[in-house]
Amino acid sequence: MEKDLAIAIDLGGTNTKVALATRSGKIVWKTDFATASFPDPEQWIRKSMGEVKKAPLLKKGDYRFVGLGLGAPNANYYSGVIAHAPNLPFEKGEIPIRVLLEKITGLDCKITNDANASALGEKLFGGAKAMNDFFSITLGTGLGSGIFVQGKILYGSDGMAGEMGHTNLVPDGRLCNCGKKGCLETYVSASGLMKTYLEFSEPKRTAHSALQVYELAVEGHSPAKKAFQITAELLGKQLADMAALFSPEAIFLSGGLTKSGSLLYDATLKAFNSHAMKHHKNKIAIRASELPGQDAALLGAAALVWEE
Amino acid sequence: MEKDLAIAIDLGGTNTKVALATRSGKIVWKTDFATASFPDPEQWIRKSMGEVKKAPLLKKGDYRFVGLGLGAPNANYYSGVIAHAPNLPFEKGEIPIRVLLEKITGLDCKITNDANASALGEKLFGGAKAMNDFFSITLGTGLGSGIFVQGKILYGSDGMAGEMGHTNLVPDGRLCNCGKKGCLETYVSASGLMKTYLEFSEPKRTAHSALQVYELAVEGHSPAKKAFQITAELLGKQLADMAALFSPEAIFLSGGLTKSGSLLYDATLKAFNSHAMKHHKNKIAIRASELPGQDAALLGAAALVWEE
Repeated sequence: MEKDLAIAIDLGGTNTKVALATRSGKIVWKTDFATASFPDPEQWIRKSMGEVKKAPLLKKGDYRFVGLGLGAPNANYYSGVIAHAPNLPFEKGEIPIRVLLEKITGLDCKITNDANASALGEKLFGGAKAMNDFFSITLGTGLGSGIFVQGKILYGSDGMAGEMGHTNLVPDGRLCNCGKKGCLETYVSASGLMKTYLEFSEPKRTAHSALQVYELAVEGHSPAKKAFQITAELLGKQLADMAALFSPEAIFLSGGLTKSGSLLYDATLKAFNSHAMKHHKNKIAIRASELPGQDAALLGAAALVWEE
Repeated sequence: MEKDLAIAIDLGGTNTKVALATRSGKIVWKTDFATASFPDPEQWIRKSMGEVKKAPLLKKGDYRFVGLGLGAPNANYYSGVIAHAPNLPFEKGEIPIRVLLEKITGLDCKITNDANASALGEKLFGGAKAMNDFFSITLGTGLGSGIFVQGKILYGSDGMAGEMGHTNLVPDGRLCNCGKKGCLETYVSASGLMKTYLEFSEPKRTAHSALQVYELAVEGHSPAKKAFQITAELLGKQLADMAALFSPEAIFLSGGLTKSGSLLYDATLKAFNSHAMKHHKNKIAIRASELPGQDAALLGAAALVWEE
């Protein structure tokens, strides 16, 4: 076994996942606990480290912690702060989580948001190993995006760049959690798909999740098929604009909505090629992430430790 | 005088400008000639170098050419090729202009498109000296954009990145020269402003140029004021999306349309702050380029030589 280990933490509103990962991206141990039970950040860190200490493989003693990587909503790589994350139990405002982590663990700690962590994971351990310019897009409840430019995550001047989910799609459209109207993620996400479906569905065929809409679409239910078609077209169109700006080598999709497979990918790729600039038509692959779904966020957090 | 000189060339559809520039961004000599008289690229290069040799300051002999920078439409930094530039007199298709330049001049030669050259000029000699993340946007006949990310021009995987002018603004909108419909530059540019004005104007107050629309707006002519208002709002809105993606420190505007001053800037900034994400509201300056208008493209071409 490799003796160098990264501590990887994926902080979510519901669960906190904690893992140990090797330099080659293998998760050798992991566990999780309910985030809500630890509303104080320092208490939450001590709980996480307490879990780590229980890992059986550490009993052999032949290991070294190289650093700690944390993926969390609204986490800022530059400032080390989690700012105003609405779904976390911590007090509102700015939490200097990196400083707290370093104080308590004594390790080098890095943080970034979930979407950037996924992109880092794709670069170090997934399908983007040989790429310098690509997108990693997570279609979950919202739409998260991590953008690689010339071999590095795009953070911008303030650490907040890469928010494709909050570019405008529909003027005066659906109200977004960010306070703006018509953001891409209010249409292109699991919750966006649901809203679009409900606009077309008959009262008798209500769906309560994106998965149910998918099952209805597979059965041939026409409003469900239409909702997928519209969602994919909007995604493909917006990705064409993103390609005009970034000229990526490839676009990786992940998250719950991608379980719908070709129902999503085929229509997205068709719309992308129809809206792309001439030199991008049929040149840019839209692919599934090569990270294992349930560990993608943890691998991304581990990648924070292993990237140069 | 500094003895190290860059040869800077700005290749336009109408005129070719040739200059000698110092490392500190001073243009010590320049001339121009009609591009159309030289439809053969090698002939055009020989003409350019013939002009350079006439520069009186070279007679003293105390100088050294460090390299040659060329700004040209559709010029690709990576491949060194000008591809399918509709407004140039050269044969259509791909012209390996960098190889030709190096063969004929014996110098290190770099090329990029006009918009990226302007951004480089802003970074080396203009208002962006201390910045690593910013946009340079030229509002001329079209809308050109050069995007700096982490201290470098954004070229993407194929050298074609940064095309903000060809992101979609209006689904099925105005037909663009690029073949797509509704591109930003068909609305936000001198020609876009004219088209918007003509949609509102009465037959008696026709304008034949963006400058005339500006003069009418200053006189208080309501359709002209409305055309500026709409153009600025669209620009501000799209820049807010660009800020969500890139988190720039500042946005620099240049080109003919910016001569309208506060008529454009005030409404653009207002729309930007109204559409920006919370953390960007009132945080990002929208400023005039600090490069002298008539020499901006030449300084950008010179910057290609002096950047590391």
